[in-house]
Amino acid sequence: MKVLIVFAHPEPQSFGRALLERSVGTLQQAGHEVVLSDLYAMGFNPVASADDFQSRRFPQALQYDREQKHAHEHDAFAPDIQREIDKLLACEMLILHFPLWWFSVPAIMKGWIDRVFVNGVVYGKGRRFDTGGLKGRRAIICTTTACHPEMVEHDGLLGHLDVNLWHLQHGTLGYAGFDVLKPFAAWMIHYTTPETRQAYLDAWEQRLGGIEHEAPMPFHTLAEFGPDWRLCPEVEPRTVGHRRPAHPESN
Amino acid sequence: MKVLIVFAHPEPQSFGRALLERSVGTLQQAGHEVVLSDLYAMGFNPVASADDFQSRRFPQALQYDREQKHAHEHDAFAPDIQREIDKLLACEMLILHFPLWWFSVPAIMKGWIDRVFVNGVVYGKGRRFDTGGLKGRRAIICTTTACHPEMVEHDGLLGHLDVNLWHLQHGTLGYAGFDVLKPFAAWMIHYTTPETRQAYLDAWEQRLGGIEHEAPMPFHTLAEFGPDWRLCPEVEPRTVGHRRPAHPESN
Repeated sequence: MKVLIVFAHPEPQSFGRALLERSVGTLQQAGHEVVLSDLYAMGFNPVASADDFQSRRFPQALQYDREQKHAHEHDAFAPDIQREIDKLLACEMLILHFPLWWFSVPAIMKGWIDRVFVNGVVYGKGRRFDTGGLKGRRAIICTTTACHPEMVEHDGLLGHLDVNLWHLQHGTLGYAGFDVLKPFAAWMIHYTTPETRQAYLDAWEQRLGGIEHEAPMPFHTLAEFGPDWRLCPEVEPRTVGHRRPAHPESN
Repeated sequence: MKVLIVFAHPEPQSFGRALLERSVGTLQQAGHEVVLSDLYAMGFNPVASADDFQSRRFPQALQYDREQKHAHEHDAFAPDIQREIDKLLACEMLILHFPLWWFSVPAIMKGWIDRVFVNGVVYGKGRRFDTGGLKGRRAIICTTTACHPEMVEHDGLLGHLDVNLWHLQHGTLGYAGFDVLKPFAAWMIHYTTPETRQAYLDAWEQRLGGIEHEAPMPFHTLAEFGPDWRLCPEVEPRTVGHRRPAHPESN
């Protein structure tokens, strides 16, 4: 496989970096081709702006996602964006490596998504989920956290991990068409022993060994929704994001 | 009330900007004091790094959240961060104004959260949710979207809006201690008529009129969880993030 790894961590000596290095080594040893976007090392600019387009469809007022579509059609993306789009389109698997900051990616990686997951390529004209622009590819999150795994169970203090990651796993990677694999998380990372860290690295390596054949998360397909964008009544919800409320007053 | 508005939009002529201006005008007319952080206008740096600290507890390798705690105790934050912390601590209500990009905030606002919601002030030493550092304050999201409201119902294509926003509303604002009000969203904003936009502005103005007394979202309190971080068995889950799975194989 061609694997694109996007990595966001400000500290080269972090355990997140050790996980990254394990990814690169393991994948290369298994014969995969690895391309790395190390966002901090690249000094990647995360701030979407009018400067991202070399020509404009609506020069009066910026409509960011509509200009993405125009830029794709007219080969008018800023070079730093086009380079990342090219990497994304060339990959068969995407790994996002990051520390979980406020239950999402660090800003530098959010900016990579904002600027690189462009309308016209990744989605648009009804292409999303199982018809998304990146369909047929796999994606996985590999993250380090400052919480205990019990906290992100269904009835845990923070709510289920997949609810916390819904905007990323379903709303971003799933929306783009990826087959999304269950996330890999290393817990309470500042307070682990060297032995625990070694065990995380080995567990991740083992996971990577079977990553080509692992079953993705069971997201719904477009065909399971009606023209009103609601799940067809005969379809049983099978994700944390489509679960029906237990009682009407719950939010 | 003292109201802090944090605004992230790259286009001064956007409808998001019009919503912001309606916020400022309505709140000031009602006698509230408004402080604005216009992140694009400020050129706010969203990238968390070692430069954020003027002294370090762990100079060898950056542990970002632990350095935040140290910086708070030693008055060692970079000035752009300290200014925003001061605004945050002075406010009684926080309004986040942003376009919904990939079911979250634009990177420049994620960076404001990463750098300003600091350990030692906003959370830490067991302070979170109803004991969070910002308890007693209110917070609300005011956003513009590129989706239909039907898509973010419980059985909608994208999953419920509150699942998409869980990481922000529960994991960030709720975790910090805020009473979080239901979000305000203007739908499919690129394709609205002037009349619809006017109606959104008026609906938002009306909402702001009662914002001091509106009931917050029903998040669970710390006392409802056991020492194992799980909801006590007698407590009925009442949020989208704590809902029990319908059947075991669902994710």
